[in-house]
Amino acid sequence: MIVTVVGLGVVGGSFVKALKGKGYEVYGIDTDEQTLKIAKEEGYIIEGYTDGKEILKKSDLTIICLYPSIVLDFIKNNTFKKGSIISDAVGIKSYFLNQALELIDDDIEYVSGHPMAGREKKGFAYASKEVFKGANYIIIEHEKNKKESITFMQNFVSDLGFKSVRIMSPYDHDEIISFTSQLPHVLAVSLINSDNQKYDTGKYIGDSYRDLTRIANINEELWAELFLNNKEYLLQSMNQFKEQFDLLKEAIISGREDVLKEKFIQATKRRENLEK
Amino acid sequence: MIVTVVGLGVVGGSFVKALKGKGYEVYGIDTDEQTLKIAKEEGYIIEGYTDGKEILKKSDLTIICLYPSIVLDFIKNNTFKKGSIISDAVGIKSYFLNQALELIDDDIEYVSGHPMAGREKKGFAYASKEVFKGANYIIIEHEKNKKESITFMQNFVSDLGFKSVRIMSPYDHDEIISFTSQLPHVLAVSLINSDNQKYDTGKYIGDSYRDLTRIANINEELWAELFLNNKEYLLQSMNQFKEQFDLLKEAIISGREDVLKEKFIQATKRRENLEK
Repeated sequence: MIVTVVGLGVVGGSFVKALKGKGYEVYGIDTDEQTLKIAKEEGYIIEGYTDGKEILKKSDLTIICLYPSIVLDFIKNNTFKKGSIISDAVGIKSYFLNQALELIDDDIEYVSGHPMAGREKKGFAYASKEVFKGANYIIIEHEKNKKESITFMQNFVSDLGFKSVRIMSPYDHDEIISFTSQLPHVLAVSLINSDNQKYDTGKYIGDSYRDLTRIANINEELWAELFLNNKEYLLQSMNQFKEQFDLLKEAIISGREDVLKEKFIQATKRRENLEK
Repeated sequence: MIVTVVGLGVVGGSFVKALKGKGYEVYGIDTDEQTLKIAKEEGYIIEGYTDGKEILKKSDLTIICLYPSIVLDFIKNNTFKKGSIISDAVGIKSYFLNQALELIDDDIEYVSGHPMAGREKKGFAYASKEVFKGANYIIIEHEKNKKESITFMQNFVSDLGFKSVRIMSPYDHDEIISFTSQLPHVLAVSLINSDNQKYDTGKYIGDSYRDLTRIANINEELWAELFLNNKEYLLQSMNQFKEQFDLLKEAIISGREDVLKEKFIQATKRRENLEK
C-alpha cells in the first residue's frame, strides 16, 4: 500500500516518522527540497516530490498536512488515484469539509482527521513519532463515507500510536475543539500579552506560568485562520470561560472563601478525572 | 550548622531532600509521625519532632513550610535560638510579614523567602530535590534585615539548586506573584470549570488543554487564603488579563486577522524571550 504525506512539517513529518517500519511504501511531497532530501536520507520516505503529478496517481492513501487554506488548492490542482483515500490534519472542519467534498470525484473517498498532537515549533526537525504516542485522534464522518473506510482509518492511526480514536460530525468537532484547543490558545496569548513588564518576569515565574504560556508561542498564520473560521463556537467557549472567570472575580472582591473553595474543589475533581 | 525544616509537605520535604549531603545537621518537625519516621529512615533528617520545644532552641536556621495562616501561630507558640534565622515559604508576603516581625524577638532575624517551585500533589512522597533544580527563588527584604543574612540566604538556596535568586520588597513580591502565579491559577480553574461537559472532554484534548489545566488540580485551603490576602494585586492582574482577552474577542467578532496576527506575534516574541 502506497501512502503519500503532503507537507513534511511537524505534523506531516511525524506521520512519515511514525509510518517507518509499519510495512507501507511511504512517499513525501513538500515545496522544500532540502526537507525532502533529509527525509529520504533518514529513510522515512522512498522518494520526495515537490508536486503531486507523478505520485498521487499511484497513492492509495494521501494525507494532506497543509494549512487549511492551502488544502483546498492542493486538492483542486491534483489528480488522485481512483478508489484511494484522501485525509488531512486540519484543525477545524465544518467551514472547509463541504468545499473539499465538492472538489473530489465520487470514486475517491475523503476521510478527514484531526490528530490532537503537535509541537510549538514548526518544521520536520521537530517532528517525531513520539508526538502521536498516547494522543487523541478524531475522525470526522460525513454522509459520503463508507463504513469500511472509517474502520480502515481507525486501525491505521491506532497503529501509529494514537491512544483514543473517536468519530464525530464536523460540527461537533468544531464545537469541542473551540473549547479544548482554541480557548487555551486565547488564554495563553492573553496572559502573556497582559504582562505590564514592570519586573523582569522570567525571574519570578514557576511552572504554572511556564505551563500556561507554552502555547503562547503560536504560529500566527495558522491560528488566525483557525480562529476566524470557527468564530461562533470559539466565541461561545470564550463566553463560557468568562462566566467562570467573573464568578471567581466576584468571590475575591466579596471575600467569599466558601465560593472559592467550592470552585477549587470542582476544578480539582475535573482535572483528576479528565483522562480516566 | 543546624537546620530545622517545619512541615514536611511537598515544599518542606523538598528542602530536607535537597539538603542531603550538603553538610548541614538537618532536623524535621511535622504533626504526622509517619512522615517523620519515613524522612528519618530515608536518611533525610537526623531526628523528627512533632513540636518545636526541644530542637528550635538549638536550630541556627528554621525554615517554616506551613500554610500562611499557621506560620504566625507557629512563631507565636515557639522559642527560637538567639542569633538564629527564621525563614518561610509563604506565597504572599505583605499582609503577613509585619505580623510575623512583631512576634519575633530582635535578636532573631526573619528572612522571608519564596521558592517558585512546587507540585500539584501534596505530601512528602511528592517532594524531591529536583523540584528546586533550575527554579526561581525570591528573598523578601525588610528594614530589619542585615546584609549578611540576605547574602547567607542567597548562597544557601543557590546551593540547593535554585538558579535565580532575586531580592525585593514584600509589596513588589505580591504584585509580580499575583501575575505570574495567582492569575495562572485563576485561568486554569476558570477554564476547566467552564467545560459544559457535552462531550467526553478527555478524548478530545491535546497537550494545550493538558498544560493549561494541570494547576486546576489545586489545594483549596492554601489558594483561597493566598487569593483573599492578595486581593488588590490579584484583581489588578485579572483586569490586565481581561483587557487582552477582550481585545482578542473583538478582533474575532470583527474578523480582524491583522489584529490577531499582531497579538500572536507579540505573544510568541515574549514567550521566546521569557527566560533569556
